[in-house]
Amino acid sequence: MRAAIFNGPKDITVGDRPDPVIEEPTDAVVRVVLACVCGSDLWYYRGESAHGIGSIGHEFIGVVADTGSEVTGVRPGDLVVAPFIYSDMSCPHCRNGATLSCVKGGSFGNGTIDGGQGEAVRVPLAGTTLVPVPGTGHSDGTLKSLLTLSDVMSTGHHAAVCGGVREGGTVAVVGDGAVGLCAVLASKRLGAERVIALSGQPGRQRLARHFGATHVVAARGHEANEAVLELTGGIGVDAALECVGTQQSIETAAAIARPGSTIGIIGVPHGTVPFNETFFRDIGWRGGPAPARIYIPQLLGDVLAGTIDPGLVLDFETDLDGTPDAYAAMDDRRAIKSLIRVGSL
Amino acid sequence: MRAAIFNGPKDITVGDRPDPVIEEPTDAVVRVVLACVCGSDLWYYRGESAHGIGSIGHEFIGVVADTGSEVTGVRPGDLVVAPFIYSDMSCPHCRNGATLSCVKGGSFGNGTIDGGQGEAVRVPLAGTTLVPVPGTGHSDGTLKSLLTLSDVMSTGHHAAVCGGVREGGTVAVVGDGAVGLCAVLASKRLGAERVIALSGQPGRQRLARHFGATHVVAARGHEANEAVLELTGGIGVDAALECVGTQQSIETAAAIARPGSTIGIIGVPHGTVPFNETFFRDIGWRGGPAPARIYIPQLLGDVLAGTIDPGLVLDFETDLDGTPDAYAAMDDRRAIKSLIRVGSL
Repeated sequence: MRAAIFNGPKDITVGDRPDPVIEEPTDAVVRVVLACVCGSDLWYYRGESAHGIGSIGHEFIGVVADTGSEVTGVRPGDLVVAPFIYSDMSCPHCRNGATLSCVKGGSFGNGTIDGGQGEAVRVPLAGTTLVPVPGTGHSDGTLKSLLTLSDVMSTGHHAAVCGGVREGGTVAVVGDGAVGLCAVLASKRLGAERVIALSGQPGRQRLARHFGATHVVAARGHEANEAVLELTGGIGVDAALECVGTQQSIETAAAIARPGSTIGIIGVPHGTVPFNETFFRDIGWRGGPAPARIYIPQLLGDVLAGTIDPGLVLDFETDLDGTPDAYAAMDDRRAIKSLIRVGSL
Repeated sequence: MRAAIFNGPKDITVGDRPDPVIEEPTDAVVRVVLACVCGSDLWYYRGESAHGIGSIGHEFIGVVADTGSEVTGVRPGDLVVAPFIYSDMSCPHCRNGATLSCVKGGSFGNGTIDGGQGEAVRVPLAGTTLVPVPGTGHSDGTLKSLLTLSDVMSTGHHAAVCGGVREGGTVAVVGDGAVGLCAVLASKRLGAERVIALSGQPGRQRLARHFGATHVVAARGHEANEAVLELTGGIGVDAALECVGTQQSIETAAAIARPGSTIGIIGVPHGTVPFNETFFRDIGWRGGPAPARIYIPQLLGDVLAGTIDPGLVLDFETDLDGTPDAYAAMDDRRAIKSLIRVGSL
């Protein structure tokens, strides 16, 4: 089959990889329909995080082509959403909601395991990993929103959950990347009354407002902190959601969080969390990779009903052969997030 | 009046300070009955944290001697517990549970404001700060336990609350100082099924067991981490409570917390929280100075009923003139926590 191959920083090609087949009775093979490029893929692309040579991509939806003898819950022909990791959902960590730590789990597209940016994927632990989508005849917009449940929308939702976003609360989202925009949408969905989006780009500001942002702060750094504090009467926000991971965004989240709150942090931290400073304001920090497998069924209904449309973060598209450009578009900030159309339904 | 005076590291004397009088209509003057020395006082005593020259001590119970014209809720003659800070309980931070950030609040015994280690204290915002104790004829043991609500027991409870201790859960308490021992008691009170106390000292181990510890781990560092992981089948604890604040204890808490859990941290961090490492196990960190004014009414009933007896952490006692020795006893680790008998009921 054809698939994207990570050869090293700034070097993604599309080439041949072995056709996936059932290796374990708990496997399925999924024919990929839509895939996309994650912000974390960009860290690899830019050489800022290590990545194995080989398969890449961990966000995809597709159609089940084959299942092993022990797979229950999904059948050939099913349209499925794959969370960005596979997990057995029965180990102590999965049962505790920490699917990333599944004792039998692993990551798609890590160089060795098939990636989503390819024609097909062998999915281990398929029965507990894949989430079948009910119904048929879904619109292209719905399919794109379903794809975001694989990671980006689940991750934005995780930020809001970790930050304890509640009905009537005031939230600030630090970061206007695809995850930050999804965190705006998730906060609105959870009932936040005021959602402050920190964004300096008109296109992203518009999408943030469409997703439910009631205020936009275009400034950065100290000026942004002051603006958010002014909007909250000097108190700070009930939930600051850190969706970038740089030192500046971490410090902004720390500065605008109100005493007694918990900062939801899902940007992979490439800076230092100033815990010893926020301690004296009774501020907690909570986050990590999202348990997407748990969130997908919670968010699926709203996507199918059209109540939320997170697929709008995918503002650039190409086909599998165009994968290198899908990366370049995000790297150049021409795209918020790149969609890759791999196969048909 | 006579009061302890902080002159500098290792230099506490007992001398004269002005008799407190009502200065604001919201003030009360409280005649101190019992006071004690906090672990955080030791940081000042050892010169590891800065402290103003003058008054010291922030944990006390006493009898109201006088009240300003606007004070409601407490009257002269009332036995009261003072939380370690004063607060108005009506500002946005107090209403949000973050009393330490009260816009009108402040700390007792900071060099300027009267300290608990003295014959009397002018208490600002007295009506919302002091908690009257119902009933009369309380035993000496009950009075000592009431004293602990001022800070140490409320702080141990805060660790358990921040760590999300729940009915049936497994908890590990890192630190066998007075706060750690109170965290054991608080975890048991909140229904934890297994409470693992990390302590190498027989006397403290005994008290931990009396307070509800089901397991004691005497090792430290890597060996302690391994022992706790073994006790939990390699999973880690539902709630790791960090009650010291040193680099080693912070790292132990990080190592033994199970994926998806939140570490309750109330030791003032003198080390670095390894957030970027725990992030990948979806582990949060939450803590800070306890909102004692909120917890005192919640814990008071159990103290009066004798259900909890946190006063047992006070294993050394002296009178006001003996205050320097109260510090030395804790500094030399002759005492878990020092009681200072200042006045009579």
